[in-house]
Formats: sequence, structure tokens, C-alpha cells
Amino acid sequence: MQKILNNPRRVVEEMLQGYLKCHPDLVTRTDNPKVFVRKTERTETGKVGIVSGGGMGHFPAFIGYVKPAMLDAVALGEIFKAPPAEIFLDAFREADKGRGVVCVHGNYELDNASVTEAMCMARQEGLLVRHVVANDDIASFQGKCRSKARGLAGEVLLWKIAGAAAELRMDADTIVEVCERAMARTRSIGVGLSACIIPEVGEPNFNVIEGTMEFGIGHHGDPGLQTYKIRKANEIADLMMEALLKDFDMCGGREVVVMVSGLGGSTQMELYILFNRISDILRNKNIRVFRSYVGNYFTSLDMNGATVTLLQPDEEIKKLLMYKEAFCL
Amino acid sequence: MQKILNNPRRVVEEMLQGYLKCHPDLVTRTDNPKVFVRKTERTETGKVGIVSGGGMGHFPAFIGYVKPAMLDAVALGEIFKAPPAEIFLDAFREADKGRGVVCVHGNYELDNASVTEAMCMARQEGLLVRHVVANDDIASFQGKCRSKARGLAGEVLLWKIAGAAAELRMDADTIVEVCERAMARTRSIGVGLSACIIPEVGEPNFNVIEGTMEFGIGHHGDPGLQTYKIRKANEIADLMMEALLKDFDMCGGREVVVMVSGLGGSTQMELYILFNRISDILRNKNIRVFRSYVGNYFTSLDMNGATVTLLQPDEEIKKLLMYKEAFCL
Repeated sequence: MQKILNNPRRVVEEMLQGYLKCHPDLVTRTDNPKVFVRKTERTETGKVGIVSGGGMGHFPAFIGYVKPAMLDAVALGEIFKAPPAEIFLDAFREADKGRGVVCVHGNYELDNASVTEAMCMARQEGLLVRHVVANDDIASFQGKCRSKARGLAGEVLLWKIAGAAAELRMDADTIVEVCERAMARTRSIGVGLSACIIPEVGEPNFNVIEGTMEFGIGHHGDPGLQTYKIRKANEIADLMMEALLKDFDMCGGREVVVMVSGLGGSTQMELYILFNRISDILRNKNIRVFRSYVGNYFTSLDMNGATVTLLQPDEEIKKLLMYKEAFCL
Repeated sequence: MQKILNNPRRVVEEMLQGYLKCHPDLVTRTDNPKVFVRKTERTETGKVGIVSGGGMGHFPAFIGYVKPAMLDAVALGEIFKAPPAEIFLDAFREADKGRGVVCVHGNYELDNASVTEAMCMARQEGLLVRHVVANDDIASFQGKCRSKARGLAGEVLLWKIAGAAAELRMDADTIVEVCERAMARTRSIGVGLSACIIPEVGEPNFNVIEGTMEFGIGHHGDPGLQTYKIRKANEIADLMMEALLKDFDMCGGREVVVMVSGLGGSTQMELYILFNRISDILRNKNIRVFRSYVGNYFTSLDMNGATVTLLQPDEEIKKLLMYKEAFCL
């Protein structure tokens, strides 16, 4: 394993220490060593706190999105492991400035359990917490039902929307409503060209056989829809877009936001090559691209591959996505 | 090779097409297909044009820095290949708005030859072009002489400085002077933990033996100073910082700007782990970090490893580095 590492068991702590030292202007650690909050200016009173969290290994998720008009606090677990309820509870407490908290997190069983328990504990303290789950991964849709669907990079767009809505002083109910509306209009799909190595273990937690690719892979190497022989970039884009656009009711006026997120191991060059075809496919279908993002937005350690996310924005979502956008994505 | 690629001979063109489609608000292609210019606002008259260029494979260098208060135009070559003089000349012509052009490029023989020839051709057209070379790689310093030293990520800081200086309407001579002063105060060193694969060739152009690392490696896998057995992150940081700080006259008041740039294959987690130690080393030596950057700022395709750059800023350099900084780095 040719990696820049010390003790593999301490990667999370050392990475977080390095991040804090690099961004003392953005983020502070709290009394709970797994809870990080945004450095706020004095003017930022009376806004709903936006929280997220989950296992590490997805940088820049989650800590990299603790910034103005994005997340106010994050609850972090070990690599690919959901944080326990107590960590989410502390993040809620930190983020609350008197107008309650909205937690936007991925739809994973253990994250859900922790968030739900933490919300219950918060309520006992008189703290109002609402939550929204990202369940954009169509590889895990069951029929038309998204209740079991995993979250992929669509979550990043929700943070942007929720963060802007909170800065604009929307209340918690309104933020939940707009995030749920955005998520209902969001679909993602992933493709994995290699497994990723969990430093503590020193080897992959799953396998992608050389010469093949996993279509519909999740953010932790969760099983996909199908194993294909490896294909060219354009064919990968074709497969992904066919799956994403199938039965996708274009209620949003034939306009989309596109996010191509690398999984950590693929170069930016590859991501732009993938996006090049995606852009052509959309143009040929007369679907306008409102805004596109190509980069490592939600990774899976060093996995080769990418996720593609489509969001059909309405006017309010567009406004929120573009709010202070130079400072965020 | 598990990569998201089509025809390996067309990666440069497809990547550039994808980039243009993703960032139509930032960059435009010119009549010369290897020259890209920044979309400018009408208010931006009377400024010196800032140009760079070189071979592809170093994303976000070069095209990713064509943005406000950074580069105005870039001249691009094939992967790791210097663009010919005609391409630089066209970039100079595009960037000129009547106050001349400053070209800030890496100190590589073929890039130098192209830039020098293009400057000569520009002069014949009455176009004033001055240039500054980045020669920050201490692995290629010869004694105290930097004339043969290669450029590493220090170049990115020069673009930031030159771009800000141009926006502040400094003239070409002043921009060259401040960039040369900044470069004299800049040192970098690279370490490679794996080779990188040139898509056209399908295999590495050099080799890093498993279990070893190349200390002092260049941006194209150029030979380093020494092959070491692979070491832990902290020991790698120690080696790099020892080399960087040796004989480094701390004329800048014991204050530095730090840039840790991934070479493409290393994860952001590893880069923060490396920075964590670097930050501690500097603190122990009572050297204050003015600003730190950790990310993929100047890559070498998918090489595993990182470069570390130290710049001792004076007050003017600090001001220029922080100019519109939320929009740039």
C-alpha cells in the first residue's frame, strides 16, 4: 500500500488535526472531539442550524462543507462508520442558535438510527430538530419507492440548498420542505472501476475484478446493479444517463443541475471526459444544463470511478443553489 | 488500466471539451484550439494580461487557473509536452489589452524555448511580453544557483500574485519584479510514491519500485535526489521539511505560506495527514503559517505523492495573495 500514512488506526484523528490546522478560519473542534462547528461571524444570529454527519472517508464530505452558507456543524464517525447518537446530539446542540436545527444526512440504516435517537434526545431537552434524508441512488430504488434508497452526491446539493435557505432566514419547516422537494427531483448513479482500501484494514472491503466495473455501486462499495466488462468513458456515460433518465419525469421544465463526483481515485481529467459525453447526451435530448459541477465532491477513499447526479431545479432551488455560490461550490 | 477513457490519443481534446462545457462562464476557446482565454467583464480594461502554459496532465494547471484575478490566457501542449512557440504567441496576442503581457511559466527547457521564441515574435509585432520562470524545486537547485531548477507548485502562487497585481493595475515591470521577488523566496520539494500512467502510452514513463519512494521527484516523474524505502507520513514530512528549511534564509520574518499539493493519485486525507506534521514542524521552529493550501493544485496525472512549497511573504506579497481570495484558491 503506497500511501502517505502513519498509524492506520489514527488516520481519522490525524486527518482532522491537519484539516483544523489548515482551516482555523473556517472550523473549530468542540468539547466532543467528533463534532466540528463553523466559525461564525457575529451577524449570523437567528438562523436555523444545518447539520450533517456520517462516517469518514468521503472527503470533502463531511467536514469540508462546514463553511459559510453550507453546514454549521458535523458529527463524524470512523471510516465508513456511522457516528453514534450522542455525537449527532452534540452536533445539534452546537448548531442550535434558538431557531432549531435541520439535519441533512444520507439514508443509511445506522446513520438513520443515530439521527433518530439523537432527535428524540434533543426533543427531551426542548431542542427542535428536523431531518431530511438523501436517497438519490437509483441503484437502490425499489420500484418507485425510495425509502430504502441510499444517498449519493445529491446530498451535497441539499447542503447547498439548506445552507442558503438558512442564511436567508427560512424557518426549519420551510427548509425541510424545499430540501425534500429538491431530493424528490434528484437522482444519482455510481460506477466503480476499483475497490477502495480502508487504511485500518489495509485492503479493500470488497472487490472489483480487473477488466470489469461495478455499475450502481454505493459510496462504501455497497453492491451495485450489475458487473460489466470495463467500457469506454462514452459508453459508461451512456449507461449511467440511460439509467438516470429512464422514467425520470421531467417536471422541472427540461432543465437540470449536473454533478459528476469522482470517488477519489479517478483523475479530474477522467471526470471531464465523462462530463463531456453527459453534456452531449443532455443537449441531444434538449435538456438544458443550469449548472454543472465536476470534481471530487463526495468520495469513497481512493476508489476509481464516479457518481453522476441530476437535479431538476425549480426557480426557488435555482436561487438557493446560486446563493453566495463563489464561496461554496 | 482501469480508467474512464475513450481513445487514449484524444484525452486532451475530450478533457478540454468537457472543461469548456462545464465552465462556459469562465473560459472560451480561441481560433487556436490550444489557446484558452478568460471570459472578461467589460470593466476589465487597462490591465496587463497574465499568461501561462505548458503540457497537459497537471490539472488544475493550467486551464483551471483561467479565472478572475488569476490567468487571462493559457497555451496548452499535449500530455507533458511543451506547446510550440506559435501557441504561446497566440496566447500573448489574446491576453494583450494594450498594457502588455507577463508570462509566468515553469523552468523547463522546451517551455523556455517556446516562450522565448514567442516573445521574440511578439516583439516584432510591437507587443511587449515579459516573463518570469518558476524554479522552486530544490531537488534541481545546483548549489545556490537556480537557473536550472525546475518549477513545481510554487508557480500556482505566482499566478495568484501576478493575477492580483494585474487586477490592481500594476504595470508589467512591477508585476515581474514582485513575482521574481516571490519566487526568490519560494522553495518546493516533491516525493513520488508511484509512477503515473500516460494514457497515450498506457504505461508509466518511469518506475517507482513497490516499497520505495522517490524523494525530489519532478512533475513528470523527472529523476529525484534519492530513492528511499517507503516511510511513514511523518517521516516523509520530516525529510521534506529538513530539505526545504536547510539554508533557507528566513528573511521574511519567520512567516511562511505553505502549499501541499497532491500529485493526483493521493487522497486529500493523506495530504492533510502530511500537512498535520508540517504544521507541527513549523510551530516547533517558531515559524508562523500565514496561509496554507492543501489539495490538488498542480498534479502529475495519477501519480501518488505530493509536493510541499514554502513561500516567505513580505507585506506586498501577502496583500496580493489574499486579494479576492475566496474566488481563487
